[in-house]
Parts: sequence; structure tokens; C-alpha cells
Amino acid sequence: MVHDTPTTPDFFARHRELLDRAVTGTANREYWSPFPESPSTSVYGEDAPKRGEAAFREQLGRPFVLDGHPGSGTVDPGEVSPYGLALHISYPRLTPDEAIEAATAGIGAWRAAGPDTRAGVAAEILARINAASFEIAHAVRHTTGQAFVMAFQAGGPHAQDRGLEAVAYAWAEQKRHPAAAHWNKPQRRGEPLALDKKFTPVGRGLALLIACNTFPTWNGYPGLFASLVTGNPVIVKPHPGAVLPLAISVRVAREVLTEAGHDPNLVILMAEGPKDRVASLLAVRPEVRIVDFTGSTEFGDWLEANARHAVVYTEKAGLNTVVLDSTDDYRGLLRNLAFSLSLYSGQMCTTPQNLLIPREGFDTDQGVRSAAEFADDLGTALDKLLGDPARAAGTLGAIVNEGVQARLAEAAKVGRTVRASAPVEDPDHPDAVLRTPLVALVDAADHETYTREWFGPVSFVIGTDSTAHSLSIFRTIVREHGALTAAVHSTSDDMLAEAELAALEAGVHLSENLTGGVFVNQSAAFSDFHGSAANPAASATLSDPAFVTGRFATLQSRRPARSPEVGDA
Amino acid sequence: MVHDTPTTPDFFARHRELLDRAVTGTANREYWSPFPESPSTSVYGEDAPKRGEAAFREQLGRPFVLDGHPGSGTVDPGEVSPYGLALHISYPRLTPDEAIEAATAGIGAWRAAGPDTRAGVAAEILARINAASFEIAHAVRHTTGQAFVMAFQAGGPHAQDRGLEAVAYAWAEQKRHPAAAHWNKPQRRGEPLALDKKFTPVGRGLALLIACNTFPTWNGYPGLFASLVTGNPVIVKPHPGAVLPLAISVRVAREVLTEAGHDPNLVILMAEGPKDRVASLLAVRPEVRIVDFTGSTEFGDWLEANARHAVVYTEKAGLNTVVLDSTDDYRGLLRNLAFSLSLYSGQMCTTPQNLLIPREGFDTDQGVRSAAEFADDLGTALDKLLGDPARAAGTLGAIVNEGVQARLAEAAKVGRTVRASAPVEDPDHPDAVLRTPLVALVDAADHETYTREWFGPVSFVIGTDSTAHSLSIFRTIVREHGALTAAVHSTSDDMLAEAELAALEAGVHLSENLTGGVFVNQSAAFSDFHGSAANPAASATLSDPAFVTGRFATLQSRRPARSPEVGDA
Repeated sequence: MVHDTPTTPDFFARHRELLDRAVTGTANREYWSPFPESPSTSVYGEDAPKRGEAAFREQLGRPFVLDGHPGSGTVDPGEVSPYGLALHISYPRLTPDEAIEAATAGIGAWRAAGPDTRAGVAAEILARINAASFEIAHAVRHTTGQAFVMAFQAGGPHAQDRGLEAVAYAWAEQKRHPAAAHWNKPQRRGEPLALDKKFTPVGRGLALLIACNTFPTWNGYPGLFASLVTGNPVIVKPHPGAVLPLAISVRVAREVLTEAGHDPNLVILMAEGPKDRVASLLAVRPEVRIVDFTGSTEFGDWLEANARHAVVYTEKAGLNTVVLDSTDDYRGLLRNLAFSLSLYSGQMCTTPQNLLIPREGFDTDQGVRSAAEFADDLGTALDKLLGDPARAAGTLGAIVNEGVQARLAEAAKVGRTVRASAPVEDPDHPDAVLRTPLVALVDAADHETYTREWFGPVSFVIGTDSTAHSLSIFRTIVREHGALTAAVHSTSDDMLAEAELAALEAGVHLSENLTGGVFVNQSAAFSDFHGSAANPAASATLSDPAFVTGRFATLQSRRPARSPEVGDA
Repeated sequence: MVHDTPTTPDFFARHRELLDRAVTGTANREYWSPFPESPSTSVYGEDAPKRGEAAFREQLGRPFVLDGHPGSGTVDPGEVSPYGLALHISYPRLTPDEAIEAATAGIGAWRAAGPDTRAGVAAEILARINAASFEIAHAVRHTTGQAFVMAFQAGGPHAQDRGLEAVAYAWAEQKRHPAAAHWNKPQRRGEPLALDKKFTPVGRGLALLIACNTFPTWNGYPGLFASLVTGNPVIVKPHPGAVLPLAISVRVAREVLTEAGHDPNLVILMAEGPKDRVASLLAVRPEVRIVDFTGSTEFGDWLEANARHAVVYTEKAGLNTVVLDSTDDYRGLLRNLAFSLSLYSGQMCTTPQNLLIPREGFDTDQGVRSAAEFADDLGTALDKLLGDPARAAGTLGAIVNEGVQARLAEAAKVGRTVRASAPVEDPDHPDAVLRTPLVALVDAADHETYTREWFGPVSFVIGTDSTAHSLSIFRTIVREHGALTAAVHSTSDDMLAEAELAALEAGVHLSENLTGGVFVNQSAAFSDFHGSAANPAASATLSDPAFVTGRFATLQSRRPARSPEVGDA
């Protein structure tokens, strides 16, 4: 039988309205979310949870299939769920040469497709990823240790929001200059000079996404989609501990690219074994022109120093800080902060670590509370929040790896432990390692303790001379060591203004007086900026124009106009 | 006597319309120029030429006065006009520490002023620089060696256009996000979550402008104004051979800043002696967070490698290339190209060096012309263009420094010299060193000759196998060595399309079939992009969004909304 070539679907037309709405969202910063965050059957369909879990289960113990993907043989990165399950999934094994060759083959057609087509393809990829949210949730859960609802939300719809946000910035940025213009320059004598000009966005070149263990999709999608929409192929190099969520995403991306008539190898999965060092091999290849990285300060700094032929976007570690000056809702403050410290066991790059409070205490609606009293009260709030094991498990998730456990053991020897970290039994997962947050009381003089990052459920209540002293420490340590988040509590408008000024000088985003249902460690796509190049914790914001402008150039050609008459433009 | 504090003038209100129009110009890329390019008394006033020259003359042999400028003592950089006049002007001498301390003192108030105020101040600076165009023209002429009309246009209004273009991009970019937003997230149960958010553009920090000898203002203003408008103080470090044009500009900037109630030290002049190495000392200072540089590939590469704490925008050297395939206006082609090679003696970063043409010849309306014949014809066209010494002097200007003369001597030994460089007597300036362009015929096999930059009036007619071969060489050498400009001549639409594709792949802007009054080495602000990060000759475009996004961050604060009722946003 002979079929006509099937018509290529017009994904841009399909998603045009969504893309326009997304661009509006990036510009007005009001609340907007295209992908529903509720893991509810009324939203995602009656079968979605079951089918998603089945898809995840079916994958276990097998080679992950990516049609037409380059490479020979497979590699098992050794993914083990923090909930106790060994995944035993293998992925295509390929050399850097194979990855680079395959990824760059389709670059010309992808450039020629133009920003609209590319944005349409990206939006379709995200729509299908959204439909796979339950499958991805299980994959995220069993690689990161996030509890299910968080794995669904942060790894699913919230990550998809961040992805679409990057699509919107990348698409809009390429359309800030027209595709063509007529230039007509009057002359003092004679005919005007007249030129026809074309302007073409051209991707910078092959992109490398180096993803992290804890938020493979949320931190990975922005770079992936920003690069893709600006015309660049992407090699996705997951953390060996969290390959599956990105493998599923890559599979979807390749399906959509194929349907759109493009080379699926524009998105390549580069899995590696736990001892391989593929990221550092790829990053120094001259063909790699864009690097997105989330992870340790050490490797982020190495990339910035060594991948200088590329533009490098890093999110590294920081010292997230809370300044406590005064509050009129002490209970709300404690409840809110206890949840912030507990959520995913403090394994978020946005979890507060340093809590600065005057030694002698701060004013609250419950009277003055000294630093020591506050530390005790925070411990009590944590006990209360985490008293019920099942509920605690839903908040804490599991400890992602042994590094975090080792750090917890070390933290127990530092300062005065006001609240010790304790194991929690997850009723549903006897093999999971769960730990509650540790709170230690230290003094402002103990610089060495609190000027390093203790990734995991470790926080320090730091006694200072005064709020002014707290702000001074805040400014200094964030300028020097960086931060992803900062918060302040004060009932004084003047003090809030001072804290805002300190945050601007330190170069960090600030949350104020959070006592309700918004937490300092959460940032919402299309409204909150995540990270900032203004302090050492990151070289980029997710997402903003600076996150996309370096990924492409607008190249120009010009020629004498065919009809140079005046007024003919 | 006691005066009231004079009211600070509202420069933003004064220039609001101009700024809006400039933003439109950056977006539509049609012809627009706010600053008239004609050095005419009907535009600039009856006295302007005389007053401008007098202001220049009065300055000779004296210390340059900058009120309130830091430093102790003076330094004479040894400026000598290529037209034979020693300037003997001294400038404030200051150490890097003094410059950094002074420049950063006003940073807080400058940040707080906000983008509108900063754009208004910048527009006023440019308006006053425009009024000083004749003074600056003489200063540019007697430091760069440009002939008067070019010194006026490129050093005056065209540079001011480029400055305003950078102001427009910088201003608009900071306003892409609102200053405030209300965020209202519906909850499945209960009241929505509601936050008030603020967004504040914050400059990256102290900027260092390292300017060049040949186009101190045209290449300098974009970085200066982009940094200033995004909230950053700027240390202006001119080339020791071309201090005066930027010293005048700095004087104007400081006057306007003072009137606006800001610290004039937000713009500092850092003059140095010819043997000082102040740029490299400053560039590695951690306080310096932005570097703009125009000059040699060697120092540009050094800056990119060593000033990694800063964002570095460089324009370096390249191999500007012309591909000759066919033409229906051979005389126009020759006339146009001869002028391109002659203008300012080829001392433009945009002058073509490599002319690729099939050995066996290309089709013209005058018959097929072989590579050798074309080289001869080009020589004849140059002879004709430069036959009259007075007219030649007005096109060639003078040779900027001994490096160019040495290179000319070296070029005489390369390939077959078809047209030798010759001295020209400038009737008005017997001491000026003028040289006409050299044209040598080489073969495509002579890689070593044409894959290095010969800055100055040196061009190679390179015989290739075919236009396809020419395009292949073009692609390869521009990808490897960079280019600021490229041009093609062809009567075939298919071949033009191929050349456009090659230019996109090489990463360079392309001019096609220029035979009239537009020249490949000219680029017009608000329409043409100058340079591209897409090839090694530059890491930035003058100007585009990427040129400004790295100079500031948008920092955010958020707090619970005072009136969280639904629908109250």
C-alpha cells in the first residue's frame, strides 16, 4: 500500500494561544499556571494515576527504549530509590563523539524551522509531558526521595510551568526583532538609499544540560527548552541517581520532534555510570556551546572556569538566610518555618539554613523570645509538625543519598543541638531512610560553622547583637557565599525597607513575613524569579531574558531594495 | 546669600518622547537617526564649527579639567595627532584604588533612582554630547587620523546614535517586568494565597570601559551607556592614543550627573601613560563586574580568560570577507569596493580584507573577469578614486600609528602586489602620514597569508576553484578566526541564498550586491547589528538585548498582600 506522506501537524497553531498567554504571564508576573498542580483524577482522568504507576513499574528492570537513539549497548547508572527500590533500568550507552555527531546533524533544519515552529514543538512536548505527569511523579519519587505529592507537583506541573516559562522567554526574545525590514535613508541630494534587510535568529550551538539528583525536571526543563526553542540541539546528561524522569522527558521530546518532521536526535540522552565523568568530558568539547548546570558549587565553578568557549548557566549552593526582627504572628512564623525546614528534609536548594536573631531576643505577639527560646520553640514546632509518622513521611520524603546522612552526623557535633535529627518510620516504605531536621544554636562569632552550606535538614539559629547586626551578616555572607532565598520577619515597615535594601545589595530575592500557606522555599513560575546572577549561588535566573539571550544571535543580511522609490516601504 | 536648593531637572520627562521613539527604532529596524549626521551650520548653528574648533584648540597643551574628579597630579598619555600635532594634554592621574572607591560611592543612590531617571540622564548626556559634536570631531580627528567629515559623523552623530540605541535597549530591558505585581493563587479550599511582589533592576556592579584608538566614541558609547542606564558606575579607560574624545564625553556626563543630583564620580576617566597597563590591573579587580573592550584579539582573549568574575563584552579582530560570484554592475562593484577599502585607509574593524573570487573569473556585465583581471581592475578603481590628493585625503584620513605602517611594509612582500600602497600628500597637513590601499593577489592555497588579520589598508584577492570553494573558505575562516563583516556579489538568487546560509553558519552579518552609496564597512544604528557573538571576532553585538541583559539583575521581594480578598487585585 502506498500512503501519502502524512501532513506534519502544526503544533504552533495548536499552542499559539497558550504561548501568547505564557508571554503575558512572564511580563505581568501575576498568578498563572497552565498545568494543574493537583494530582487529581478530576483533572488528569480516572485512569491517570493507575496508568502512570503502571508505566513506571513496567519500566523497572529493563532497557529504556528510545527509538532511533544513537549509541551501542546500554549502561545501568545504578539508580536506587531512596524508598528502597533498585530500579535496574539501563539506558543507551554512547560516547561523547557519538552524542555530538548525532545531536548536531539536524541543526540546519532546526534553525530553518524558525522560532514559531520551534516554540510550537516545545509546547507540544510539554503538553505530552504533562499527560505523563503520574509516570514522571513515580520516577521523580523513586530517584529523588520526594514524597508523592511533592514529586507530582514539583517534578510534574510545576516543572512543566518552568519549562513553558522558558519557552515563552525564548520565543518572545527571538521575535523582538522583525524577520525583515525596509531601510530607507533620505539623502540631501537625489534618491534615498534603500535596503531590504533580513534578521534571522541563529542558535549558539550544541547545548549540554547537566541535571541534578534532587530536582531533575524542575531544574532541568528551563535550560532544555530555552536551548531547544532558540535553535540548539540538547544533550541531556542526567545525574546517575536520577536518570528516569529525564529519560521519559527525552522520549516524549523525540516523539514530538519526529512527528514534526525533525531529527529526534536534536534531544539526546547521555546516561552514564556512577563513576563516569561524562559531563566534564563533554563540557570542554568545542562543539558544546551552551552548558546548563545544577549542582555543587565545586563542579559549577569548574565548569565556569573550563567551559569558557560555552555560555554557562549554573545554579550552585548558597546560604539561605532568615532574619528575625519581630513578628505579630509568632505561631504562624514557627509553623511556616518548621514546614520550610521539613519539606523534602531540607534537601531543596531553597531551604533556609541560617536563622539570624538577636541573642537577647525579638518581639513577638507572645512576648520577647530570646535566640535560645526561639530555637526551642522551633524545635517544638517541628515536633508538632512531624509527630504523626504517616504525615511526617508525606512532608519529609526520604534522604536522597548517603552524603546527606553523613552531613547530619557531622552537624550533631556543631554548636548546641537544640533539636536533634531523628529517624522516622515511613509506614509504607520500611526501607526508606527518613530524617527530621536538626536545629543547632550557634553564635554570630561561629563563622566557620554557618558560612558553609550544609545541604539537607540542618539549620542554625545564630545569635546576633541586634537586627542591624543580623542584616550586616546577611549582606556579607550572601555576597561572599551566595544564596537562593532569603526571608525576613518584621512588624516594622522601616525594618522591612532596610531588609529589602540589604537584599538588593546582597543580590538575593527576599520573602517577607511568611506565616501562612506560602513558603520561602517555593517559587512560582511566571511570577517568582528563582536564583539570580547577582550573587555567587547562581549565574542565571530561572527564567528571565538573560537566561535566553545568550543562547542565540540575530544575524542580518541586507541588499539593495528592489523598488527603492520613496514611500514604497 | 542663601539660595533654595535648585530643583533637579526632570531629564526623563524632557527626553521621554525621544526614548520611546528610540525603543521603536530598536524594534522595527527601519531607518531612524536622532542626531543629524551633516556637519552643517543649518543644523548645528552658525557658530558651531568655529566654537567647536576653538574649544579643541584651547584645550591643547593644558591639563584637562574635570571638576571634582578624584586623583592626584596629572598624566600626559602622549597623544600625537596622525596629522602631525602633539596634543600635550594632561589628565587626572589616579590609582585603581582611587578610581574604584570614587566610582562606587554613588552606586546606591544611582540604583534607587530607577531606570526612568537613569535613561533620562543618559539621554541628556547624549544631547549635550551632540551639541559638542564639532569639538569632539576635532578631538577624534586628531587622535584617530580620521578625515574631518568622517571624524564628525562616525565620532559624533553616528556614535551618539549607537549610544542612544544602547540606552533604549537598556531602558526597555529593565521595564520588561513590572515594578510591582499582585499574585493571587486560588486554593481548592478557603481563601486564595495572595502576595504583593516588587521587582527591582539592580546593576551588576562597577563597569570598566576599555576603548580603542580608532573609534573611541563609536565603539565606546554603547558599553558606557548600557552600563550606566542599568545602574552601574563606569570607569572609562581610553586608549592612550585617543583620550580626548572620551575625556570630553566624561566631562559632559559628569556635568549632567551633578545637575541631576547624582555623584559625578559615577563616570570616571582613567587616563594612563603609553606604557602603563591600567586596563589589565583594573580588569582583575573583584569590584569590576562588567568589562567592555574593543581592540586586539590578544588582549580581548586575555580579558575573557582572566576577568571571569566579570561579564566581558569584547570586539576583537576578524577576517572580513567578500565573495565574488557574479555582478550586473561591475563598475558599481569596483567603485563601491574601492571606496570601502580606502575609507580611513582600511583602519576600520569592518574593512574587507579577503576578496574570494574564482581564479578563472566571474561573470560581469563587462564580460568574464579572471581573478588577476579583477585585481587589476580594482587597482585601477583605487587609482581613479584616489587620484586627486585633496579628495584622497578626505577619504583616506591619516595612518593612526606605526603598527599600520609596519604592516604595510610587510604586506608588500606577500603574494603578487597588484597595486602597491603609496604615500599621498595631504595639502593641508604636510606632516600627516597618508597611505593608499595595497592589493595583493594570492591563491586559496596561501592560507597562512590570509588567515591572519592585516589591520590597515591591505587586501587580498584570493583565487579559488569556484564560488562553492569561495563559500567553503568563507565559512571555515570566519568560524575559526571571526569577522565583523561579510559581503557577496551575485546575480543568482540561488547563490545569494547559499551565501546567506553560509553566513548564518559562519555567524556573520552579510551585505549583498552593494554597488551604490551603502558600503559594507558601514553599519547604521537602530537598523544594522554590528558584530555578533556567533563568531570569534566578538562576544557581543552593538547593540541588542544580549548586550544589556548581563548588566543587571531583576531582584524580587514578596510579602503577604494587605487585602487578600478575592478579586481585590
